[in-house]
Amino acid sequence: MNEDNALSRMLGMRLALLLAPMAGVGGGRLAAAVSRAGGLGLVGGGYGDAPWLATQLRLCRDETFGVGFITWALRRQPGLVQQALDAGARAVLLSFGPMGEFARQVRQSGAVLIAQVQTVALARIAAQEGAQIIVAQGGEGGGHSGVRGTMALVPAVVDAVAALGVPVVAAGGIADHRGFAAARALGAAGVMCGTAFYAAEESLADPKAKQLLVQASGDYTVKGDWFDLARGLDWPGGPWGLRTLGNAFSDRWEGQDDALRRSLPALRQQYDAARERGDFDIAAVIAGEAADLVRAVRPARLIVREIVGDTR
Amino acid sequence: MNEDNALSRMLGMRLALLLAPMAGVGGGRLAAAVSRAGGLGLVGGGYGDAPWLATQLRLCRDETFGVGFITWALRRQPGLVQQALDAGARAVLLSFGPMGEFARQVRQSGAVLIAQVQTVALARIAAQEGAQIIVAQGGEGGGHSGVRGTMALVPAVVDAVAALGVPVVAAGGIADHRGFAAARALGAAGVMCGTAFYAAEESLADPKAKQLLVQASGDYTVKGDWFDLARGLDWPGGPWGLRTLGNAFSDRWEGQDDALRRSLPALRQQYDAARERGDFDIAAVIAGEAADLVRAVRPARLIVREIVGDTR
Repeated sequence: MNEDNALSRMLGMRLALLLAPMAGVGGGRLAAAVSRAGGLGLVGGGYGDAPWLATQLRLCRDETFGVGFITWALRRQPGLVQQALDAGARAVLLSFGPMGEFARQVRQSGAVLIAQVQTVALARIAAQEGAQIIVAQGGEGGGHSGVRGTMALVPAVVDAVAALGVPVVAAGGIADHRGFAAARALGAAGVMCGTAFYAAEESLADPKAKQLLVQASGDYTVKGDWFDLARGLDWPGGPWGLRTLGNAFSDRWEGQDDALRRSLPALRQQYDAARERGDFDIAAVIAGEAADLVRAVRPARLIVREIVGDTR
Repeated sequence: MNEDNALSRMLGMRLALLLAPMAGVGGGRLAAAVSRAGGLGLVGGGYGDAPWLATQLRLCRDETFGVGFITWALRRQPGLVQQALDAGARAVLLSFGPMGEFARQVRQSGAVLIAQVQTVALARIAAQEGAQIIVAQGGEGGGHSGVRGTMALVPAVVDAVAALGVPVVAAGGIADHRGFAAARALGAAGVMCGTAFYAAEESLADPKAKQLLVQASGDYTVKGDWFDLARGLDWPGGPWGLRTLGNAFSDRWEGQDDALRRSLPALRQQYDAARERGDFDIAAVIAGEAADLVRAVRPARLIVREIVGDTR
């Protein structure tokens, strides 16, 4: 299956599939594998770590690639955008906060500016800020995602930006060819997938976390602030929260943000130690509701084929 | 567009479209209009009111129709199932609680048993309980709906019950042909729509509420227990909550269930009075995230055509 639309031409892809920029999980090796298979791999710039990013960007420099950033965190380390552009990023994705000066910086460099949004209102703002591609991200998505469902959000965003000719990419809950075809039916020019690639062989996720995802039901994911509090990440208010698989830690702290805050210094140490030793009763498996559709740890190229329906 | 699949044959429909059984909104006139247009209208049996139901069933008796019930509420007035069957209901939909003896009663009557579920686990239980059709309802849906998004829930439910040959209907966030086509791509045999028909000319919703829906953005819907508390509806715990448009009342009480409970006797009177006079700053417009896609008050037959893509 070959694509030839505004989206694929802009991003130099054969297929209308983007790898979601998963912080700590989507490194250069995964991004390169997705791009090699015909999509576009986005390295997860996450909370900002210049040496880590440099290493990862070296791992995908032989392929077309992009980098995704958490906009509010980027503001503390604004140099990372230039680092990504200097490394040859074809596209920069910004999500979670006003793009402001970063939008201009990306556009002026000639790279493609992708804005990820979680509401129709944010889509309109992103289009005004110069986004060339808009990712409409439903709350089904793993990690930080919105509170609206993909099914109704995507056509509403398509309608909101149609007059501007900005292609819309659907994200959230898409992990196989059914979701891909559904997204296209909703008017999206392509899809962006994270959870589907969390369990890829090339992902940086802990092997135990990958196995937990393979065994998980999408019925048991949760969305809230407790893991961010435990990780010491001071997310600002916004129409988003962290979606993860449920575990003993989320069972304990769901809806208990105030109590959690009071336990913090000790709890944060516990959490960091659990993550270090791969204890996922405490540490989060940051994946979304598409968990039901992820049934094996596989090479990224096979996942790409399953999503786009390319069965050659 | 004509359908000929297991779903449409079972329900005697030309089109693979069901009207969601909206309590207080989906009466016999709306159900008849949807059935006349080729779908299947389900009267909203709601919290149980035998005289009201009798009136509504008379209004649709010249068409094929079904009735939907809230299972836990039905247990207080179990005679309503027989009332629906005696009136000639082709199908009975049950949602929100174990079906138990009602499943046997419907099956033995020869009517079609439709179970609406909000998780994969509930889909498996419904199939074991004898459901002949399963509606996988995403949390985008208005009124009581689940916490999972339609996009990832539908294919997971399809996979969970595929071996049993039970057709799956997608619900939640579907209000135009894009959603219909997306649902089919996800593996659903058809769709069930509520919000799309809330603003139908034939719906029993307050004309002011219909106008508010037409003007609303799906960005501003909320999901919680506050309206049920104010209405005096003692919903049991479950993976569901009431989705409505946001308003001043939800802004005030969201996340404040305990405080709301303390204000209850007075607040309930205020709420009932507001509903009586059509004050939707207080009373709820019970609609879902598909609000962006509902742009006019129209006859149900035109809404049916827009959803199934039948443009004759």
